[in-house]
Amino acid sequence: MSYFLLDEFENIEPYNPGEQPDDREYLKLNANESSFPPSPKVLEAIDKAHINGMSHYSDPYCWKLRKAIGDHFGVSAEEVFVGNGADEVLSFCLMSFFRPGMKICFPDITYDFYRIYAKAYRLDYEQIPLRDDFTLDIEPYIESDRDVIIANPNNPTGLAIPVSEIERLVASNKNRMVIIDEAYVDFGNESVLPLVKKYSNLVVVYTFSKSRNMPGARIGFAISSKAIIEDMNKIKFAFNPFNLSSLTIEGGCAAVNDEVYFEYCVNSVIKEREEFEKKLSEIGYEVIPTTTNFVFFKAFRTPAGELTAKLKKKGILVRHYDDERVCDYIRMTVGTHDEMERVLVALLEIENSYAGCKLSVTA
Amino acid sequence: MSYFLLDEFENIEPYNPGEQPDDREYLKLNANESSFPPSPKVLEAIDKAHINGMSHYSDPYCWKLRKAIGDHFGVSAEEVFVGNGADEVLSFCLMSFFRPGMKICFPDITYDFYRIYAKAYRLDYEQIPLRDDFTLDIEPYIESDRDVIIANPNNPTGLAIPVSEIERLVASNKNRMVIIDEAYVDFGNESVLPLVKKYSNLVVVYTFSKSRNMPGARIGFAISSKAIIEDMNKIKFAFNPFNLSSLTIEGGCAAVNDEVYFEYCVNSVIKEREEFEKKLSEIGYEVIPTTTNFVFFKAFRTPAGELTAKLKKKGILVRHYDDERVCDYIRMTVGTHDEMERVLVALLEIENSYAGCKLSVTA
Repeated sequence: MSYFLLDEFENIEPYNPGEQPDDREYLKLNANESSFPPSPKVLEAIDKAHINGMSHYSDPYCWKLRKAIGDHFGVSAEEVFVGNGADEVLSFCLMSFFRPGMKICFPDITYDFYRIYAKAYRLDYEQIPLRDDFTLDIEPYIESDRDVIIANPNNPTGLAIPVSEIERLVASNKNRMVIIDEAYVDFGNESVLPLVKKYSNLVVVYTFSKSRNMPGARIGFAISSKAIIEDMNKIKFAFNPFNLSSLTIEGGCAAVNDEVYFEYCVNSVIKEREEFEKKLSEIGYEVIPTTTNFVFFKAFRTPAGELTAKLKKKGILVRHYDDERVCDYIRMTVGTHDEMERVLVALLEIENSYAGCKLSVTA
Repeated sequence: MSYFLLDEFENIEPYNPGEQPDDREYLKLNANESSFPPSPKVLEAIDKAHINGMSHYSDPYCWKLRKAIGDHFGVSAEEVFVGNGADEVLSFCLMSFFRPGMKICFPDITYDFYRIYAKAYRLDYEQIPLRDDFTLDIEPYIESDRDVIIANPNNPTGLAIPVSEIERLVASNKNRMVIIDEAYVDFGNESVLPLVKKYSNLVVVYTFSKSRNMPGARIGFAISSKAIIEDMNKIKFAFNPFNLSSLTIEGGCAAVNDEVYFEYCVNSVIKEREEFEKKLSEIGYEVIPTTTNFVFFKAFRTPAGELTAKLKKKGILVRHYDDERVCDYIRMTVGTHDEMERVLVALLEIENSYAGCKLSVTA
């Protein structure tokens, strides 16, 4: 720590990303990335002309990408904010609308970034416990006077609440900002997007990192009222105007315009997820029924932390959390069919290494 | 403006980027971009494998790029912070080390972002006037108790102060943070970099947007003591961990490793700048002798604002500032020889459109 660091940041907690070890090749199922490459249209779009075109600044307004996203989602470019990943979008949102001490709440078990951000922006935050079965009860949020962030579906549980419940929350207090993070919405869920036209206190955050297979491109966006998006852009223009590179903008446009590939990838993940969940259950794991690109299941013989370490030894990375409410669980990204077959073999090897164990799955 | 925007941001001033009109093709000399494409190695590096590799997250530590930069500049990766453009680097620096009300100073005529940031971060800022000839007197900075940001060479004047003067400032108070923005250092100036090993209160900020021809890639970096860089990374990991895309990291490494192309481009710009400055003087303009990739000259017949508008009509964009100390001046990026010939023709046409005018330049 230098002489100059602000005291309030001395104990700031950094986000802890899923590990990216490079000591060997791993099957990386710990960060909900994609086993599919970006759309082939992205490969076409990032061509020699655009690479050489980096000799000029990217458009700080990102109009082309905002328009492509707006066209896809049936809103105007003025209702779309784009950022360097959903994390930056959320960061600009908090920076624009929340000062130290302001009240916000989110579930106790959710994307850890909300807590990291709440601490970094020194907000007065409350973590509202999920029910014992990890489902979300909307009532305490409605009763609270706090602004709200909810990931729907939630991460790492994979569980979603109906849009009607979120509408009750949004409608309960028009001066309450409700931020809904729909990072995983595309894998079989209903979006709250139509509510944006009806309510001016709703911000919906999306990412290209999941259903569009592009976490390495760093593209996130928010859709909200024109006034809120204008505010966020005003703040962006004062703190980091040129936040997206020209290749990111081009790649993003190509990806959002390739509806056919998007449907293909999403449907493949859903099909594989359903099959994999069934096989995990056959082995004996208690599986939370998710609607995302990952599964969340409870260890029953090998403890979850140990199972994670043993899978790593076999070259497979999965995510395990220390939090006591979920420390018996493992979160694992759904990869290709071959990848998940490899995982099943590894899981059976580990679980059958105990005396007298003969677990198996149907072929 | 939405109901939710924080009061303190109601009148926040956004950065005003050089215009990027798309109504026709322009020769864009208003943003100090490059007429050279990025290194051919960048084109090679951003290949199919890396584009498809965007299906995984980029490295939030950006080790590969930090190491490449460190190797090039003779420092370790731990002494290098990389950001999404020098603007984001500066933003993280201010966020880490400056809270509202803290004292900072910078020249009255300089890169406008310092003032924008100082206002956005609600700092107590002082703009210290340059001398009448736009040179910088270091004494008032040394006498001040404020932290300091200085662009060296300065923008838009193009003038540099000797490293020995900056060392006097840095050495004058080891508890004063001195941020030196060397965006334009490569076009014929001495860098303060060696001082980083000697003083722990110096942060040097660089960009790939000028001498490495990649403004569209959004890469900036800072070199400072390990402690300061560690602090900035800590803050980055709490506010925007994955700030560089995987293609940006790859492209950046390729660019910094191509020393030959870098030298070629920089030397071409210097040669063309010197020739162009001479011809501007022949026409009758008072030219400030710059050591950057741009020229800064005083209008003498057609007022600078009008000259800017007339050049735009001829398809040439240059930068004009409203500030009364420099409102008679024009800042113009140095492009290729052909581009600057085109500019000279345009300038002569405009200046000779008055009765009895017959200005010319030697061929």
